[in-house]
Amino acid sequence: MANEIYLSNKDLDESIKLYFNELLPIKSEKEILNTYEALGRVSFSPVYAKISSPFYNSSAMDGIAVDSKKTYGASDRNHVELVENKDYIVVDTGDPIPKEYDAVIMVEDLINIDKHKVAIYKSAIPWQHIRTIGEDIVEKQLIIPSKHVITPVDIGAMIAGGINKVCVYKMPVVGIIPTGDEIVEPGGELKTGDIIEFNSRVFSAQVKEWGGNPVRFDIVKDDYELIKGVVATAVDKCDIVLVNAGSSAGREDFTCSVIKDLGKVLVHGISVKPGKPVVLGIIKDKPVIGIPGYPVSAYFIMENICKKVVYSYNGMNLIEKKKRQATLSRRIMSSLKYLEFVRVKLACISGKYIATPISRGAGNTMSLVRADGILKIPQNIEGYEAGTKVKVELLKDEEEIKNTLTCIGSHDIILDIVSDLLHVKEDKYFLSSAHVGSMGGIMALKSGETHIAPIHLLDMKDGTYNISYIKKYLCDKNIALIKGVKRIQGLMVPKGNPLNLKSIEDISKFRRRFVNRQRGAGTRLLLDYNLKKLNISSKDINGYEREEFTHIAVAAVVAAGDADCGLGVYSAAKLMNLDFIEIGNEEYDFAIPKEFLKMDVVKKFIEVIQSNEFKRELDKIGGYNYENIGSIKGFF
Amino acid sequence: MANEIYLSNKDLDESIKLYFNELLPIKSEKEILNTYEALGRVSFSPVYAKISSPFYNSSAMDGIAVDSKKTYGASDRNHVELVENKDYIVVDTGDPIPKEYDAVIMVEDLINIDKHKVAIYKSAIPWQHIRTIGEDIVEKQLIIPSKHVITPVDIGAMIAGGINKVCVYKMPVVGIIPTGDEIVEPGGELKTGDIIEFNSRVFSAQVKEWGGNPVRFDIVKDDYELIKGVVATAVDKCDIVLVNAGSSAGREDFTCSVIKDLGKVLVHGISVKPGKPVVLGIIKDKPVIGIPGYPVSAYFIMENICKKVVYSYNGMNLIEKKKRQATLSRRIMSSLKYLEFVRVKLACISGKYIATPISRGAGNTMSLVRADGILKIPQNIEGYEAGTKVKVELLKDEEEIKNTLTCIGSHDIILDIVSDLLHVKEDKYFLSSAHVGSMGGIMALKSGETHIAPIHLLDMKDGTYNISYIKKYLCDKNIALIKGVKRIQGLMVPKGNPLNLKSIEDISKFRRRFVNRQRGAGTRLLLDYNLKKLNISSKDINGYEREEFTHIAVAAVVAAGDADCGLGVYSAAKLMNLDFIEIGNEEYDFAIPKEFLKMDVVKKFIEVIQSNEFKRELDKIGGYNYENIGSIKGFF
Repeated sequence: MANEIYLSNKDLDESIKLYFNELLPIKSEKEILNTYEALGRVSFSPVYAKISSPFYNSSAMDGIAVDSKKTYGASDRNHVELVENKDYIVVDTGDPIPKEYDAVIMVEDLINIDKHKVAIYKSAIPWQHIRTIGEDIVEKQLIIPSKHVITPVDIGAMIAGGINKVCVYKMPVVGIIPTGDEIVEPGGELKTGDIIEFNSRVFSAQVKEWGGNPVRFDIVKDDYELIKGVVATAVDKCDIVLVNAGSSAGREDFTCSVIKDLGKVLVHGISVKPGKPVVLGIIKDKPVIGIPGYPVSAYFIMENICKKVVYSYNGMNLIEKKKRQATLSRRIMSSLKYLEFVRVKLACISGKYIATPISRGAGNTMSLVRADGILKIPQNIEGYEAGTKVKVELLKDEEEIKNTLTCIGSHDIILDIVSDLLHVKEDKYFLSSAHVGSMGGIMALKSGETHIAPIHLLDMKDGTYNISYIKKYLCDKNIALIKGVKRIQGLMVPKGNPLNLKSIEDISKFRRRFVNRQRGAGTRLLLDYNLKKLNISSKDINGYEREEFTHIAVAAVVAAGDADCGLGVYSAAKLMNLDFIEIGNEEYDFAIPKEFLKMDVVKKFIEVIQSNEFKRELDKIGGYNYENIGSIKGFF
Repeated sequence: MANEIYLSNKDLDESIKLYFNELLPIKSEKEILNTYEALGRVSFSPVYAKISSPFYNSSAMDGIAVDSKKTYGASDRNHVELVENKDYIVVDTGDPIPKEYDAVIMVEDLINIDKHKVAIYKSAIPWQHIRTIGEDIVEKQLIIPSKHVITPVDIGAMIAGGINKVCVYKMPVVGIIPTGDEIVEPGGELKTGDIIEFNSRVFSAQVKEWGGNPVRFDIVKDDYELIKGVVATAVDKCDIVLVNAGSSAGREDFTCSVIKDLGKVLVHGISVKPGKPVVLGIIKDKPVIGIPGYPVSAYFIMENICKKVVYSYNGMNLIEKKKRQATLSRRIMSSLKYLEFVRVKLACISGKYIATPISRGAGNTMSLVRADGILKIPQNIEGYEAGTKVKVELLKDEEEIKNTLTCIGSHDIILDIVSDLLHVKEDKYFLSSAHVGSMGGIMALKSGETHIAPIHLLDMKDGTYNISYIKKYLCDKNIALIKGVKRIQGLMVPKGNPLNLKSIEDISKFRRRFVNRQRGAGTRLLLDYNLKKLNISSKDINGYEREEFTHIAVAAVVAAGDADCGLGVYSAAKLMNLDFIEIGNEEYDFAIPKEFLKMDVVKKFIEVIQSNEFKRELDKIGGYNYENIGSIKGFF
């Protein structure tokens, strides 16, 4: 049970090449399905028609079937008479044409002489108005080649061509083994120290999307022999095995030694970030991969390695993600030691993509939910300056990104409601909001990385809101200020206000534990404004340096008992079931370059915030005044 | 049971508007799923986190948890001593931080004094090295909005946020009822006059792709009361009902009257082609649609109407198909009475798309399998001239179209083999072949609508192949001729040669029923060459005017006993189990503009035809000589 102490730092492409060289030839298996059940599956071999369609000659018209030779010579001057059952039979569209006939004359071209005799004035050309055998599909004709993803119309053509069973690639069975002492199944009572297991569910869904068949095993405790037993079973039952966590080189990281014990390890440690501690192993000719525990690391290993492995079994053609050129809105640094995967938001501003990096933490699952694309920074590059044109791999449909209103600035719960209502009102539109505080919003407008910026910036000199900041920082732009809401700001304290806090003075006086907002947040400015008025130094506020990025995050810290109070909006306090001590009103508005007011999605945004539905939602939450919401306060 | 006699000719958009106005509000239903099973489903309402993740403060490093206040003043000159369990506890990465502590000091920054005492030389900043509550997800935070298609990472974030069940749109249940006296289930013995039922299987697959849940009913005979009974049952069980065929206004077309009887009909007959005879009805507030019987008509009604209906239930955002500009390679006429859907092949030649219309028959399912896109010709337009720039809706992935080698010209079975081997050898490449005869291939090269043209054109004057045609017709281009195969051409006759045919003379002498190839086909030229040599008039060949487009189609006609003989290649005869009377050898080569020889896909094509694998396949079929295949015969 010797553990590796150090991980290698092998290049990603090199590792994959090495791994596949050892894995090949991968034995893809086939299976036989009913043709009508084969949607989306991949043909294992070319499919040739067994029968022609139509498989008999049939009439393409209502009329009579004749032997064309008997009609020769018919003309306007010289009609030819034909007798039923001797010279012709009556046929409807679709009726089979007996062998003795080779043409159809339309009912419109017949003169009835009596019930069983007709005259014609034009001879029939052989094969006229006959749908001949194989007009659609000819026996032995190729319907679909091998390695073809079967579509609805393929199913129709195959059945028409007499193919009722079709041979397709078997979907590889992918065993997924979650391991760890601290991980627990979701749904139970959570104890401090528990981590909810969800990686295996993400992997299962990814495998499904890639055309594999995931089989999830129960959570296995961090015990060498237990893990070894489950991995051995999984290798017998599955085509591919993924072991989650324990893939690094720590005390309790058994994945690598288990794989070495049962088979061999080709790579342990790849120079990517996040995702370094990965194990590429082979047991009984089957790929067994140790995947890091941090969700974001795991995601990138799944996307960059496991996906290729699954595709090598299922016959599908791995199409690379679409890439688009984008301009970086900020500088981004990267280590020379790693190929780095950076999650970015993409804003489509005036037809150009602006990429803004989001959280780089390996534990941040929401960053993956929110990301529009991935920027890969190669190993030998230290990073990029703001303004650099980079290639970004798209994670979302391009139309969705193009139809998204980007909203960067101060956070308020109402943005979630607007986002929801906008998309419900108009399917194709989306609102994406990033919470960087009001000053962050102003800066995002300045650098052109957002359509709209929600702000509530208090002028320390005169107590007015927003306008003086726009004038000062955005003087080179023509900015419209859309009226938003007045909202009540106050101190959030635990239910029942156990410490009997009454004002900002009390925080410093009794050294209560405070939780602050980040620099640039309007709420922080409001605190600073009040501290200044009260002549209190920020040093006297215990927790002034502890920063959270949203109102809810502040409320959550207070609700968890981790701080005695924080400053924020009424709605957040209410949501978290906290008590609330009002400090004052503030104006939360939307700044937007004037030219964007023309955009259809902006018009819809204004429609949404002016709608009764939205106002009803605000009333439900409480703490908002929405008089004249959506009107233009002015252009600056 | 009064039938409509005439169909209306209502505009498509107008019909849809009228129909949806009457259908609204559509009552989408919701259902609750386990989060981990919700991949690809659509959220019915916004999903907010129930718990924070992490839901406790945890250490981000290995080290000790301390109260930062007790560390104040520590410096290089003035160390501070801390005692275990009084001033600190030991923590590993991920361990929870008890409430009395607010910072972590890394193990690297500690000096051990004894087993339970350490010294530090730097004070701790509050909250340093702590992963705080909600660092990833904050309780009550929006994870996904409503009407959002759930992805793997969404599943992870929801489970991390304590969401184990998620409310999604119920997939609408779509009842599909095949009707008709002549349609039969596939798999049984086929009698002349039978039509294999496959439309319902195509509909089912389409419905699945659109996020609906198809339920197929058994075939119902053309009986008014029977159909009425099944439709009534289906309306009770399903959200949407599709009745296939019987949607026109003929004698046996009951769909419209049944819907009228049970509910109401809003539209009967829409001005689209193919697809006119459609019935839009409502029974008990549910959409009931009569779909035409011809497979291609049915397909367009499904795509243009039923898809919208399914999407209006399932919460998904119906994204329009991608459109690309293409140049029409031929003139195309269209009726002023209809909006016409034209299936086209797209060739990506030197970076530009060339659209070539393919079969317009409503019964041609293979045309849908082969189509790369749809050109919509509006109702008020008579058609387009060759060279017109048009917008084409893509049916295939654009990358696939771009990576397809277009091959227009003479048909040979070996093209199916090349197509298959090329894609197997290099996943991303495809070969698309259109069979328009050798002269058609020359013309396609001339107009720039193909990369490569397989040809076997006999010079009537000197009996040579191909070169004189290239010189004559493509003198303005620089064409390379790639050596293909020599193939044996001959007369295909039924097994045992019952009529004892020995030569082309016998066809005219005994007036045998012949089946010919289309004008411009090399095989037809070979016949003409032989007729000329033998001094036989084409008028003396019974069936000279009966045209088929491929060797296999000719062989199929002979095999079906519909003709006594045809001219074609040995491989087709063998495939169809026919006897074969050799007439001569011919040279089947590939003409290609010289500049395309540089293309990677062309190199792969040559690699494939030179491969042993390909030659083995040729040997299996027989009748081919492949000496020097793939070499360049010359540039002209």
